[in-house]
Amino acid sequence: MLRRVGFAQIHWEERMRNLLLASCFGAAALFTAGYATANDELAKMASDPNQWVMPAGNFANTRYSELKQITAENVHKLQPAWTFSTGVLRGHEGAPLVIGDVMYVHAPFPNTVFALDLNNDGKILWKYEPKQDPNVIPVMCCDTVNRGLSYADGKIFLHQADTTLVALDAKSGAVVWSVKDGDPSKGQTGTDAPFVFKDKVFIGVSGGEFGVRGWVSAYNIKDGKLAWRAFSEGPDSDLLVDPEKTMSLGKPVGKDSSLKTWQGDQWKIGGGDTWGWFSYDPALNLMYYGSGNPSTWNPSQRPGDNKWSMTIWARDVDTGEAKWVYQMTPHDEWDYDGVNEMILTDQKIDGKDRKLLTHFDRNGFGYTLDRATGELLVANKYDPKVNWATGINMDKASPDYGRPIRVAAMSTEKQDVNVKGICPAALGSKDEQPAAYSPVTELFYVPTNHVCMDYEPFRVSYTAGQPYVGATLSMYPPAGDTNMGNFIAWDGKTGKIVWSNPDLFSDWGGALATAGGVVFYGTLEGYLKAVDAKTGKELFKYKTPSGIIGNVMTYEHGGRQYVAVLSGVGGWAGIGLAAGLTKPTDGLGAVGGYAALANYTNLGGSLTVFALPQD
Amino acid sequence: MLRRVGFAQIHWEERMRNLLLASCFGAAALFTAGYATANDELAKMASDPNQWVMPAGNFANTRYSELKQITAENVHKLQPAWTFSTGVLRGHEGAPLVIGDVMYVHAPFPNTVFALDLNNDGKILWKYEPKQDPNVIPVMCCDTVNRGLSYADGKIFLHQADTTLVALDAKSGAVVWSVKDGDPSKGQTGTDAPFVFKDKVFIGVSGGEFGVRGWVSAYNIKDGKLAWRAFSEGPDSDLLVDPEKTMSLGKPVGKDSSLKTWQGDQWKIGGGDTWGWFSYDPALNLMYYGSGNPSTWNPSQRPGDNKWSMTIWARDVDTGEAKWVYQMTPHDEWDYDGVNEMILTDQKIDGKDRKLLTHFDRNGFGYTLDRATGELLVANKYDPKVNWATGINMDKASPDYGRPIRVAAMSTEKQDVNVKGICPAALGSKDEQPAAYSPVTELFYVPTNHVCMDYEPFRVSYTAGQPYVGATLSMYPPAGDTNMGNFIAWDGKTGKIVWSNPDLFSDWGGALATAGGVVFYGTLEGYLKAVDAKTGKELFKYKTPSGIIGNVMTYEHGGRQYVAVLSGVGGWAGIGLAAGLTKPTDGLGAVGGYAALANYTNLGGSLTVFALPQD
Repeated sequence: MLRRVGFAQIHWEERMRNLLLASCFGAAALFTAGYATANDELAKMASDPNQWVMPAGNFANTRYSELKQITAENVHKLQPAWTFSTGVLRGHEGAPLVIGDVMYVHAPFPNTVFALDLNNDGKILWKYEPKQDPNVIPVMCCDTVNRGLSYADGKIFLHQADTTLVALDAKSGAVVWSVKDGDPSKGQTGTDAPFVFKDKVFIGVSGGEFGVRGWVSAYNIKDGKLAWRAFSEGPDSDLLVDPEKTMSLGKPVGKDSSLKTWQGDQWKIGGGDTWGWFSYDPALNLMYYGSGNPSTWNPSQRPGDNKWSMTIWARDVDTGEAKWVYQMTPHDEWDYDGVNEMILTDQKIDGKDRKLLTHFDRNGFGYTLDRATGELLVANKYDPKVNWATGINMDKASPDYGRPIRVAAMSTEKQDVNVKGICPAALGSKDEQPAAYSPVTELFYVPTNHVCMDYEPFRVSYTAGQPYVGATLSMYPPAGDTNMGNFIAWDGKTGKIVWSNPDLFSDWGGALATAGGVVFYGTLEGYLKAVDAKTGKELFKYKTPSGIIGNVMTYEHGGRQYVAVLSGVGGWAGIGLAAGLTKPTDGLGAVGGYAALANYTNLGGSLTVFALPQD
Repeated sequence: MLRRVGFAQIHWEERMRNLLLASCFGAAALFTAGYATANDELAKMASDPNQWVMPAGNFANTRYSELKQITAENVHKLQPAWTFSTGVLRGHEGAPLVIGDVMYVHAPFPNTVFALDLNNDGKILWKYEPKQDPNVIPVMCCDTVNRGLSYADGKIFLHQADTTLVALDAKSGAVVWSVKDGDPSKGQTGTDAPFVFKDKVFIGVSGGEFGVRGWVSAYNIKDGKLAWRAFSEGPDSDLLVDPEKTMSLGKPVGKDSSLKTWQGDQWKIGGGDTWGWFSYDPALNLMYYGSGNPSTWNPSQRPGDNKWSMTIWARDVDTGEAKWVYQMTPHDEWDYDGVNEMILTDQKIDGKDRKLLTHFDRNGFGYTLDRATGELLVANKYDPKVNWATGINMDKASPDYGRPIRVAAMSTEKQDVNVKGICPAALGSKDEQPAAYSPVTELFYVPTNHVCMDYEPFRVSYTAGQPYVGATLSMYPPAGDTNMGNFIAWDGKTGKIVWSNPDLFSDWGGALATAGGVVFYGTLEGYLKAVDAKTGKELFKYKTPSGIIGNVMTYEHGGRQYVAVLSGVGGWAGIGLAAGLTKPTDGLGAVGGYAALANYTNLGGSLTVFALPQD
């Protein structure tokens, strides 16, 4: 017996040592490859489909993987391979990273980060749990979400709820550097994933419901030093716009392009926050992101176009200077934040190769632009029920070129009047849940919200750190419909829905497209679904422990393709469950239509990792 | 579009109506079958292997199922079919029930109960969340666990942390009746599952670390009226013992059998709590359970045998009268509670048919008794490292018959002396995690703790509702061993280990044996494991989201066999994680050896339901 135990012990120690060596070796190989810049290293890693090294898998935010072990033919055999509970109950947005043999998983507040050993069913190599003041929780509008991590240069970057950006040693979890980007006592919080482009790491800020004027910060990945910061609203110097060189729909924006569109000092508490996904075109040296709603939600308190809220931004990565801007919803009246991801594709339009940017806006329009110039090419509804505007003015000669053609009855300009039946609801035809794009089908796969609302604005005063919303909402599916979500395929060249699958609730999880001809996404009830990329036919579904608002990702390890997703219901759509709200008017009106969600799922954060059976 | 939506809506409503009808019909069929007694109904239901109608699957607590779709040959293909998060983070002991088309799932404090629709991937039919004073949490010694539900007569019985026993309408979740059994302000709490035998529902009480004198209560299932209550310690009238008729090892216990073994009034705060599993022999009309540690833990404060702590009880189900008792660890010095389950089997010993009771005690001995008479047949160590006693005196002629043969060096009678290297540790060679028995192999499958301790008693004063422990512990694996658990097969007729599989941590999840020749159990790291019932060969393992301290169960639905288990690390072994303890001496010394658990798993309650692939 003693002998056997002795052997077991030796075997155990040996196994530990081997694991340690394996991970150190793997890490060393990654961390010392001697790339000229972190960007070269990242670009190379992102081109390796075995890894998933940034939030969307690549700089272009296509969420497309070249892996094809899992195909439309065999995906029905998919099964969970292993799982991992994060120990946090509230909404789990975002996706893990895979760097070499290690998976990095994040969690909502308190923003725990785990390094999991892929060679050992997710054994915890290290864990980082920041100490944050819990007073940040009440100033997070839409659950205590965090949208994930980034990697570069041997560091894992975490953007904490309290706006701290921290660089962790990827091998040990030790803090390399840490910087506070904002002030939660003023309603400034961190929910978006950091993004690394070239030698900088970029973060935005949340707080549109607290009058926070949005900005993007660029920090040097090496030492955490601020390289530049650019605001969405205010003087040109704050915006990093050049009145003559920064273009909007083919024209220079001119002097004080933002200030001119605000009454008095309202711009100082004017929103335009930046909590979405960033993308990057190395050839153009431009990064792209959107700005959110103007503050307050009550439109009659802020006359004017409220530039540059609700705007797509193209900025020089090195200097932050704005190359072009396009405001989708001037003078927003419905909280149609413009923060959703910009997906960069190269496609032919009218026989001509174009560098495109496609964006599915909260306002219900899918936009395709030339990403080099900001030229508007396509703008169509991606949910036919959208009714606040009949279309986007595409007449270049018109003074209203590029502006939505509004429906007067859906205006919320009249204070204390409850405007009914506005589609989409405040959370938009799509919110933060990212779409995917397959270069094989040349289709975008878009998880959407199919929700309308009643909206009653009321006068509100600003107090730093207090809600500054000024509207009461009620949300529900469009009249006659029972589905609150559609998962659609979209042709960005023509602006047409190719197919559309109804789902019971909003599809609040991000999509993944693969070379296997399969598209994956999660549902609020908790299903991971796989559909045929060409036809939309459902090929597989599996009920994970909780509702999915996370984004599906894939990687290969040891010759086996894995598909992974965080479940853990919450976010804006799930705030009723996440924050224990019971009244239909609580939580920015979210509870109404989503109340039935409590019949399907329950809180609880966990990762489920799928693969084909090995037999 | 409108037409399609219209159709979808009709389809949806029709589906809902059908589901509703289906579940109502199923329920009606179950609830109106018109059995003479609830027991007849339960016995019939328990004999249907498609269901799992009581905590251990049957009255005998064998945790054996006749289902055999999953076999030793095909179990390697097992895969998760669906999952469900409970929304509660701390330790999840016990197992769900399956009644007809509905699964009933419980959770630790706040003791939420869910009715899940097996026809619809676990859609929530109803949810019951008691309102309980959170002040009960600090008086729960070993995590906020709850060990499950019982069913009878159309009611689901829940024993809440605050000692409330509630009967819920199985169809609607509405409270039918509710009764408060104890007083948490005195340290009395509810952690054990209720058990239904005949027309009564039985519960015990927890609180051995708070000086709670233990009892068992029998309530009428119909109206919640108290039928009888029997204490473990005190006057004969409290004990429901008859000095002449209640037997102990073949002799009447005599007058004041308990009072005589205590100094003064110490018995009033003397422990002997009753938080384990109950079993029942319908033919003998006897129910069986064990009583726990005497209070305080410091033995020098309570001279005497401290009867009837640490005792196996056989009671008349109708009257509560004790038929026989057997005290395994007189005058406990190590917290070796006697509460572990009594498994009732009919086996031949020496060619003779015997009605047996087998019990794996915390003290490290596996006992086999004649359950009709209480005759002691076998008592051997089921972990060879047990060192506090060399054996049990089996000499019927000896005055010490049936008593352990103690090792003086392991006595903790000397106050303020740290006694080192006692095996097993306070949590025993096995704690509440129930074993299983297969009538095919005639073997018991026992999840064990392989842990030793240092134990230093100190003087403690009693204050109602305050800890009354009086000892400091440190726990660790036996010298030279790295495994803190063994999953063993045990021959109860001979008292021998047939095979033994080491596990990294204690095996704190309950076992399941099946007619398919497979035995299932969970590990603290979170693996569900399947082993060959004959050889112990590992056939399958799967990493669930969190550590498993729940008990595996099985059922068949729609022609498919399912195996289900709750994961959610915690309990005494996982208290370090569950309660966020960091010092090795916190939590009754549990953290020491189990600290490494944090490298493997994380909090989070969820159910995983497994099946073979359908293709």
